[in-house]
Amino acid sequence: MDPKMMIEQGIPFVGRTDVKVLAMEPGYVKLMMPLAPNVNHVGTMYAGALFTLTELPGGAMFLTTFDAGKFYPIIKGMDIKFVKPATTDITVEVRLDLEDAARIQEKANEAGKADYEWECELKDANGQVVCVSTNRYQLRSMAPRGA
Amino acid sequence: MDPKMMIEQGIPFVGRTDVKVLAMEPGYVKLMMPLAPNVNHVGTMYAGALFTLTELPGGAMFLTTFDAGKFYPIIKGMDIKFVKPATTDITVEVRLDLEDAARIQEKANEAGKADYEWECELKDANGQVVCVSTNRYQLRSMAPRGA
Repeated sequence: MDPKMMIEQGIPFVGRTDVKVLAMEPGYVKLMMPLAPNVNHVGTMYAGALFTLTELPGGAMFLTTFDAGKFYPIIKGMDIKFVKPATTDITVEVRLDLEDAARIQEKANEAGKADYEWECELKDANGQVVCVSTNRYQLRSMAPRGA
Repeated sequence: MDPKMMIEQGIPFVGRTDVKVLAMEPGYVKLMMPLAPNVNHVGTMYAGALFTLTELPGGAMFLTTFDAGKFYPIIKGMDIKFVKPATTDITVEVRLDLEDAARIQEKANEAGKADYEWECELKDANGQVVCVSTNRYQLRSMAPRGA
């Protein structure tokens, strides 16, 4: 399965949202969550779909930017704020500096694990921010040097 | 649609998780998220399903404990921590003191809105906590006195 398909369809829960990967490069990912399959009882996007869109860049960035043969990521937590109702398809863009990514990998290689985090903004079709979050991840080495 | 069905099936995204309401009373709700339809790529429960289970008591508690003819709730945010992998069906129980609920309604009636929050714990079939969260809600009056 190619990396884009792994993100869109690798987890059945995610596949059911019909989320789309718009860009997936080293240090940069962009995804879109469609409104229609994810509306709530008042016609806006359900909070769980917004959470999912906020969470998925973690996996997409891992696949493009870290060495998937040596490391794996876990999500430690997220502080998410719903700023305004999401009434259109919603997109998210995340960037990770490649030098920062190299430092995270080096630390995980030496210590077995390394925490990292980023801020996320979800935007509607008019460029309005509907949701902001702080995502806390940990990169773990499959074979730390000390082991 | 009865309140239990509203929670389980009212939002298509939620219905697709096959979540079940185990108890729904004034001041007390208990829900269960099944593992099978919500596994991730490593066989544990996907973070988005855990978020959804943490979020749903907000709606269930609203329907049992607040006056749905006068108020509606919004979710302002959530700080969620993933403590350990969820390898079984997962349950959540939330209690809200009825006197606290009355005070929240009175404030929303007078000011048009009232913030409230609670702590959530998600537990696996062995009683182990897999996820904790702080959920921030706001109750809004459909017709505040000042309006």
